[in-house]
Order: sequence, then structure tokens, then C-alpha cells
Amino acid sequence: MRILDMRECAVAVQSSMRNAAFDFGEMTTSVVAVITDRVADGKPVIGYAFNSTGRYACGDAMRARFIPRLLKAAPDSLLGQDGLIDPARAVARMAMREKPGGDAERSVPIGTIETAIWDALAKTLRKPLWAVLAERYGTGPVANRIPCYVGGGWYQPENDLEKLQDELRRHLASGYTAVKIKTGGLSLDADCRRLDAALAIIGDSQRLAVDANAAMDLPRALAYAERLAPYNLRWFEEPVGVHAYGDFARLAEAYAPPLATGENLFCRQDVANLLEFAGFRPGCDILQVDPPQAYGIAAFAEMVALLEAHGGSRSRVFPHGGNMMSFAVSAGLGLGGCEAYPGVFGIFAGYGESMTVTDGTLNLPDLPGIGFEDQPGLYALMQELAA
Amino acid sequence: MRILDMRECAVAVQSSMRNAAFDFGEMTTSVVAVITDRVADGKPVIGYAFNSTGRYACGDAMRARFIPRLLKAAPDSLLGQDGLIDPARAVARMAMREKPGGDAERSVPIGTIETAIWDALAKTLRKPLWAVLAERYGTGPVANRIPCYVGGGWYQPENDLEKLQDELRRHLASGYTAVKIKTGGLSLDADCRRLDAALAIIGDSQRLAVDANAAMDLPRALAYAERLAPYNLRWFEEPVGVHAYGDFARLAEAYAPPLATGENLFCRQDVANLLEFAGFRPGCDILQVDPPQAYGIAAFAEMVALLEAHGGSRSRVFPHGGNMMSFAVSAGLGLGGCEAYPGVFGIFAGYGESMTVTDGTLNLPDLPGIGFEDQPGLYALMQELAA
Repeated sequence: MRILDMRECAVAVQSSMRNAAFDFGEMTTSVVAVITDRVADGKPVIGYAFNSTGRYACGDAMRARFIPRLLKAAPDSLLGQDGLIDPARAVARMAMREKPGGDAERSVPIGTIETAIWDALAKTLRKPLWAVLAERYGTGPVANRIPCYVGGGWYQPENDLEKLQDELRRHLASGYTAVKIKTGGLSLDADCRRLDAALAIIGDSQRLAVDANAAMDLPRALAYAERLAPYNLRWFEEPVGVHAYGDFARLAEAYAPPLATGENLFCRQDVANLLEFAGFRPGCDILQVDPPQAYGIAAFAEMVALLEAHGGSRSRVFPHGGNMMSFAVSAGLGLGGCEAYPGVFGIFAGYGESMTVTDGTLNLPDLPGIGFEDQPGLYALMQELAA
Repeated sequence: MRILDMRECAVAVQSSMRNAAFDFGEMTTSVVAVITDRVADGKPVIGYAFNSTGRYACGDAMRARFIPRLLKAAPDSLLGQDGLIDPARAVARMAMREKPGGDAERSVPIGTIETAIWDALAKTLRKPLWAVLAERYGTGPVANRIPCYVGGGWYQPENDLEKLQDELRRHLASGYTAVKIKTGGLSLDADCRRLDAALAIIGDSQRLAVDANAAMDLPRALAYAERLAPYNLRWFEEPVGVHAYGDFARLAEAYAPPLATGENLFCRQDVANLLEFAGFRPGCDILQVDPPQAYGIAAFAEMVALLEAHGGSRSRVFPHGGNMMSFAVSAGLGLGGCEAYPGVFGIFAGYGESMTVTDGTLNLPDLPGIGFEDQPGLYALMQELAA
């Protein structure tokens, strides 16, 4: 198996959403195509991916460093014993001549390329990626539906409460049963009114999570924790600064229900530090690393293994992203579930046309690879890139 | 004061050096020009900087996000009370619409632009940057010479020991008295032979430091620590992974002489974690953050203040970089000194032509700004960028 060519293009995400920390008005993402010499079902095998949600396009680093390093590698040096490209070897090759540390600058471009290689690999094997991942990293038979909640409840500049309730009604009507809404963008009182408005629609507080997007300092997070605790919410996400491990630890002492974090951890060492220093409670708290942003799926599987070695459970892992890549990883590895962003990030959100939401679960696509082919808008853009 | 235009170009560093972790064969850097509406001594005031040593060029992020955000800002919104651009305000503006976390991806482009703004600011004030920094962040009169050691002793593919000794003789003959050599790239025994060979030239072990470039795991670092301790070296730099705070802490318990780290810490939270979790000994260990790679000089000054709040001393801070930017910061803030890379990174290494090394110290340039004008090869490239 050989990589013949690799391409990247930056695409605007076109979202007007705002959370407690920032808005998405200029957000872009890198779409990647890995063109191989394989043919499956009469079509050339091309792997696709994009760099998920919330990190800007990174094509310059790909074109200047990571793509040339892969294309210049002796092709056999990238292969596993099965004669197919080994994603971990591809990552090691891309990391050549990289200075240690500063992971976030390279974990997104490398992870996106790695994810596209998995797409090509699964297509070569004529299997869905979730099935390939289940064979390599799974713990048993794959459920044919995975739990899925909506990452929503973004702040609206006008009629926020009314729009929030309308949004949640739409999600329930669409078949979702659990949602996450933003918090920390208003005063504590106003955010609690928002929470009450959401609960009036959702009902069960175990079906509702809140997300502060790392925008609070410790005193504010502690004040929120005190008010939120009686709600017994599903989880309280990114209450404090991403690497403020000490603050997270103090909050974990003060707040009994689950905390959640991880979408801004980019390497295994970040997760190790979370477990060692942040008071992260493996049996309780939720880990949310985003695979294509954190060196890819193989690295993500190592992070899950690390969590398990600390007594944690896969059922407490919900990969960030809300896209076909995170669905495949969640299903294949047997994780707790994943988020979805229906209608929020244009063609980069949502899921395949053959997939449906029922009772808060999503069925798995039965297409080779990640299944982007089931998303016509996104797949058209990907095909254009590879043409 | 207005920013009229900003430019960036990526330049190959052209270095063949290798340390324990990686080689510099593909290394590039971003050169930046900030063109203002001010005139000083009959010339338009243009601020310059580059992204220091060891991190790749980052022009795509500058052009896509940080430069447009600054150029679109209402000019008055960037000014301090003195009517001049306030670097901290410029950083806040550049950080607009950035998702929290993932600092390494933006701290280098933002920090490089911030440093170029300082150059423009000092030129507008018709003062050397070190003098401006001494007024804002200093602790008293600025010494007219600063301590300076050579970051050298790179591994050579052939005749390594002989070339090492030749190199060190050259440094001593040039007026340097202290050097740092690489370690961790060979076996422990071979690295100790290297150390012995270096000591045979340098003499005093307090004038010799070693640098493992974050390439060791904990068992290996502990084995090195045991062998290195009796040498009582000036410091043992980056023994373990950049964010392996737990490993650093265990090493700090086992190794009495100073450890050093920080060139791969990119934000204040990284330094806070080092102080809280890594067993970093403020009275003993050395902090080496690289200002243009870590959100710039104002952010660096905050990190120094944080260290002092933990009982540390400026005399234990040696900014990474080995260039005119780190010299100005070291002198202006009254730090312990800085490194130099004579002849290693092409036009990006070394120092101004009017500067001389005597008894291990370097005199400060008396030119407005950072003083790149005193480095003809580099300044020609900068002028071309701004033309």
C-alpha cells in the first residue's frame, strides 16, 4: 500500500455561535485527502478527514512539514505486518525533526492526517472504520446504536431563553434525549435562569450537562459549583482553564457530581497530568479528547488505555467533535457515547443521511471507512479536493 | 501611533545541528515586520522580530488570523496612556476568537509579532529596547555587560570528542567562560566521556551545563542524575519530557545541583504548573522561557513576576534563544544572563557587530530598538521584507 499524493484545503466553518470564551466567526478547518494506490469496489481508495471543531486550519504546517515527510518516506517503512499503512508509523515519520513539546502546534495537522489514513485503511479492508477499530481496540461486539447527546444551548444575542427552549424542543422532537448547554457567559443568576429554562424542557437533570468552555477562574467556578451541585447535572464541563490542573483539583474536592474535560488536551502527557495532578476522578469524571486534534486515533486509544490503567472506564469517555470521525471512534472503542452538533457547523456537523436518532441513540453507518460518503455536502468538497 | 502594515516571510535556518531529540535539517523561522506611521531620526519606524530558535515558521497563522485582527482593530484601541501601542493590548486583540488552550499553536506567532511591536515602540522612543524594558520591568540600573554562555557541544557524526574540544577551545578563545553541551544522545558512559572531554578544556564544572533536550524517560534521567551529581555541574537541562511534571519532581528529589527547563513552556499556566507540580526549586533551578515563543515580552515579564512571587530570583532566569531579542530581555529585566549560539543558526544566531565578548560577558548595543540593525546579514533580510 502506497500513498501517492496528499492534499489539503482550508474551509470556513461558517458558524455564528458563541460560548463563554469566544465566538466562531472566523473559524476554518483543514480538509485532507490521502490518495493511495489501492482500489476497492472499482474506485481508488482515498482517505479523508478534517480537523474537527474549534481549531483553525493548519495547512501550512501540513504542506511545509508533515505531507513532504510522509511522501518522502520509503513506502515500506510505513507499513505494518499486514502490508497496509500503519497509522502509528505514519505519525512517527511525521514527527521526525519536530522539537519536543509544543504539541498543540502539530497534534492537529498530524492527527487529521492520521485520521484520513484510517479512513483509507478501512476502505482498503472494505469495512466501516468502527468495525476496524473494534477489532484492534474494542472490548467485544459493537452495539449497533451509540448514545449521542446534542452539544448546543449556545448564547443568542436576543431572546436567549426563548430561543434556548425552542432549540431544546427541536432536539427532543428529533429523537435526542440528552443535551449540553453553555454556561459561564452571563452572571451566575442569569446562567441559572438559563439552566432552569432548559430543565423545564428536558425534565431529568441527568440528561442535561453544562459547558463553561474553560472561561472561569477558580473563585467563579467554585461559586457556580455551589449553585450547580443541587441540580445533580450529568456533568459540568471545562469549568476552569484548560491546564489549570490545581484549580480543577480544588473544584473536584468541592463538587460531587461529575466534571468533564479533555477537548483541549492534545497528547498522552496532557492526559497523564490530568490524572496525576488535576484530581480527575476516573470513576466519575468524563474525558473528552478529540482524536483528530490529538495526534489521531491510535494516540487516542493509548489515552483510553491510560485512563483504564488508572481505574477509569471507557463508559466515561465521550470524544469531542460531533462528527463522523468521533462516531466511529466512540462505536469502535466502545466508549460512553458522543456529542452531535446538528446544524451548527455547516457541512462539518451532523451525520450521514442514512443515520437516524432514536431514543438518544444514533445508528452506525454501514459504509467502508469513516462514512463521509453519506454526507453529500461534505463529500462533494472532499471529492473536489482529491480530483 | 498606528500600524500601517505587517509582513511575514519564512526563512530556512540552515543548520546541520543535532541534539538528543531531533535535528534542525528542515528548520525555518518567521521573520516579521511591523510598519508604523512613526518616523524617528528621519526614518519610518519599523519593528522587526523572528520566532527565535527551534520552532518552525508560522506565517499561515499570522496571515490568516493575527495580522488581520491587528490591522482591523480601531487604532486607538491598541494604544496605552502614552499614545503608543501597548503590546499587551495588541496581544489581547490577536487572541480574539481563539479557543482556550492549545497555546503552542498561537504563542509563537503572537509572541513574535509582540516582540516586533516592542522593537517599534523602543525605536519610537529612540531608546534601546533593554532601556525601555528596564524602565517598565527592571529592578535598578542596567549593567552595561550581561553574562553570556554558549549553547553548543552538539553531536557530530564523526570525531565527536575531538571536534567538541576544538569547539570549546574556540569559545574560550572568543572570550566566553561558560558553555552548555548536549547530553542524552549517546549511552551514559559515552556521554560521560564527552563530559570529561569538555571539562578537560573548560576546567571548572560550575562553568559547564548539560542539556538533554527532553529526550529521556525517568529511569534514564535518574541514571544520568546519579552519575552527573558528583560533577556538580552548573545545571542539567530538560532531563525529561517537557510537561512530565511528575518526572521532573522525582528527579528534583534525587539530584541536588540545579536543574533547568522552560524553553518549551509557552504560557503563564505552564510556568504555574511547573512551580506547583514539578518540584521546581525557585532558589536553585533555572527557568528558560523564550519570550517571542511564549506570547512575547510582556507575558514573559509576568512569568518572571510569578517566579518571584514563589520565592524565586531573576538571577535564576536565562531566556532561551541566543539572539538579540533574548539579550535585550535579559539586560532590561536584570536576569541571570543568556545563551549565545555563535555560528550555529546562520544569520539568526550571534549578535551585533558592535558587541564583544569579554570574560564571559557581552556588552549591550546602544541602538534604538532590539538592535537588529547591528547584524547586517539579518537586517538586510528584514529590510527586504519591509521594502
